[in-house]
Amino acid sequence: MKIKDLSALEEREVFPGYTGKFIHSDQLTIAHWRIKANHPLPEHSHPHEQIVHVVEGEFELTVQGVPHRLGAGMVFVIPSNIPHSGIGISDCKIIDTFCPVREDYKF
Amino acid sequence: MKIKDLSALEEREVFPGYTGKFIHSDQLTIAHWRIKANHPLPEHSHPHEQIVHVVEGEFELTVQGVPHRLGAGMVFVIPSNIPHSGIGISDCKIIDTFCPVREDYKF
Repeated sequence: MKIKDLSALEEREVFPGYTGKFIHSDQLTIAHWRIKANHPLPEHSHPHEQIVHVVEGEFELTVQGVPHRLGAGMVFVIPSNIPHSGIGISDCKIIDTFCPVREDYKF
Repeated sequence: MKIKDLSALEEREVFPGYTGKFIHSDQLTIAHWRIKANHPLPEHSHPHEQIVHVVEGEFELTVQGVPHRLGAGMVFVIPSNIPHSGIGISDCKIIDTFCPVREDYKF
């Protein structure tokens, strides 16, 4: 059981242009990203399910080779082990939810 | 794999004063709630982990009998099977993330 103030959480630039704050529970990781425009995230995949929620700005998410332009209020569910990549069309804020925990995002 | 526009998702008043939109994946449910002030949510528990994120307004979340006043930007991790209740101090927007899926929120 824990309480966190997002405004006070340490943030970390995990990839160039992708700065995140992370909440972990036993089974979940929630990542709050600030993303700079025009910084590509190369194609990758992971066993974690991922739900992408664009909060501000516009992000191009490419899943299995198909690009999707996602504006504020759009949500995309990426199943386990599906290759995906992305790039901010503008500066963006995105909330990503992962299951299970992203151990690699524990700093 | 699915894409959703939150602004176009059907919403449902699940409890009096608690109106939600729901995203489900294989392992997760994300609930986007609009909550009216002064509508109590009685104490309950469930096997699902729950991460509560107050987006707007102020919500009093009581966990194991201890009240916590949560303003915008506050996040609370509720482990499995922990009794909790709540009430909006003001009108609020809250994002709840559950694992596993809340089958009872599939309409």
